[in-house]
Amino acid sequence: MELTKESIAEWFKKLQNDICFSLEKLDGKSKFVEDEWERSEGGGGRSRAIQGGNLIEKGGVNFSAVSGPTPEKILQALNLSQAEFFATGVSIVLHPENPWVPIIHMNVRYFEMSNGVWWFGGGIDLTPHFVIPDKAKSFHQHLQSTCDKHSPNFYHKFKSWADDYFFVKHRNETRGIGGIFFDKLGDKEGRSKEEQWSFVKDVAETFIPAYQDAVQRLRDEKWAIEDKKWQKIRRGRYVEFNLVHDKGTKFGLDTNGRTESILMSLPPEVNWEYSHQPTTDLQRETLASLKKGIDWINA
Amino acid sequence: MELTKESIAEWFKKLQNDICFSLEKLDGKSKFVEDEWERSEGGGGRSRAIQGGNLIEKGGVNFSAVSGPTPEKILQALNLSQAEFFATGVSIVLHPENPWVPIIHMNVRYFEMSNGVWWFGGGIDLTPHFVIPDKAKSFHQHLQSTCDKHSPNFYHKFKSWADDYFFVKHRNETRGIGGIFFDKLGDKEGRSKEEQWSFVKDVAETFIPAYQDAVQRLRDEKWAIEDKKWQKIRRGRYVEFNLVHDKGTKFGLDTNGRTESILMSLPPEVNWEYSHQPTTDLQRETLASLKKGIDWINA
Repeated sequence: MELTKESIAEWFKKLQNDICFSLEKLDGKSKFVEDEWERSEGGGGRSRAIQGGNLIEKGGVNFSAVSGPTPEKILQALNLSQAEFFATGVSIVLHPENPWVPIIHMNVRYFEMSNGVWWFGGGIDLTPHFVIPDKAKSFHQHLQSTCDKHSPNFYHKFKSWADDYFFVKHRNETRGIGGIFFDKLGDKEGRSKEEQWSFVKDVAETFIPAYQDAVQRLRDEKWAIEDKKWQKIRRGRYVEFNLVHDKGTKFGLDTNGRTESILMSLPPEVNWEYSHQPTTDLQRETLASLKKGIDWINA
Repeated sequence: MELTKESIAEWFKKLQNDICFSLEKLDGKSKFVEDEWERSEGGGGRSRAIQGGNLIEKGGVNFSAVSGPTPEKILQALNLSQAEFFATGVSIVLHPENPWVPIIHMNVRYFEMSNGVWWFGGGIDLTPHFVIPDKAKSFHQHLQSTCDKHSPNFYHKFKSWADDYFFVKHRNETRGIGGIFFDKLGDKEGRSKEEQWSFVKDVAETFIPAYQDAVQRLRDEKWAIEDKKWQKIRRGRYVEFNLVHDKGTKFGLDTNGRTESILMSLPPEVNWEYSHQPTTDLQRETLASLKKGIDWINA
């Protein structure tokens, strides 16, 4: 199949189907509800939300393929006066019921303009409410093994990029244990479009096995009221990152995107307390682990 | 007493004392806890938090007086290359336990620079979880009566300013029923510093009577589980405004302010649900009232 924007969007649509199917099986209780929407300037999307599951308290798996005049901010950044754009991708955020289970996020996307510029972006990252080193290691091994199939530099490069990107500056802590993040993978680095696309597809297909592994055992752990309370505080930090720092969220809201789809990433049942302090060793160890540059695989 | 930055800061400090005293009496259960803090570049503050009260579930009354080199963003906006600044003020946000009671916010502030530029800013606004027209009218009457003592144009001008400022653009709704908002009240409008200061002091002293009136009767209303659920959803919108749109919050986080004091405005126990819809007439009427330009006094 020739690699066109249509074929990329089709693949992402099928990815959304596959991931929703696997997640419903994994959850065992709740089903996704779908909203199809259209964008007045061109294109649209298919948002799928899941709530009140056995595993997932609130989550979203969104597909979109939008087009039209390129937003002013992108034109400025690229020093262009006018161009049409096309953007397609899949975005996922899953908030678990059980505080022992981590929050997971994935995004894979493709962008092109009428002047011939194109790029891919994306990544997967994990935000545990409690950091458990052997689970963090296993999660990063999934990502490393996918990266290594494409370039010996990718894991290190994209892992550092995630550390820098998912940083809650005003709290001086990373959002979670990171993962990989990449943007503007175009043809500048001597890699063909087919090679970049092949990497992005492999990242997307790493999502389900990495998540299955991340929730395994933990989803059956008993939790106490204090653990739930801690989860709600940590979810507050997740909100702070997404609303204050996340470029994707900001871009979506600035460009009049579909608010309910963009903010599907926000958690249920969040709590802010003034000057909240950790009360257990594991909570303290978690905070101490929210740093850039930790080598989770060889720690 | 001569009007100096020191005397303004002293007055604000006393205001914080008076307001905390009145709020503790009004609450009848919880007491404020105080954190004094210093800013490495100059100055500091006195943050006071209250939690778990009869009336107030979570609130903050913050005083600060900070100084140092003027932040780059302000210099740019004023086309200056360098200047020292001094800023002092009191900020309040109170989140009630009872969903029938509104959230209230006040800020009064003074800013000056070594080149002689100075201005006052501030305002009071109300965010009811349920909009009740006669309570909204009464709240706006307090503000109008304070404004009218100083200029026949102030209420209309600052009420419209609040409508524009407290607007959650991505939801196409105002944060609440507004109030008054003003900024950069300097000597440009033929008003002396003493006159502007006299207005700001009157606004500050309107806070307690306006709040007492706003909570009166409502604080004793019984609420059901659905009312609490609705409150948590509305609190989510409050978070969205403060983290996405509020310039004060953004400025504080950007200029390395004290995070716990800045984010004291965030509510306890918040909930996000995908595509949440109102379920009662009063909830629907509330949403219909979150519009700019409503004349609450003559409605």
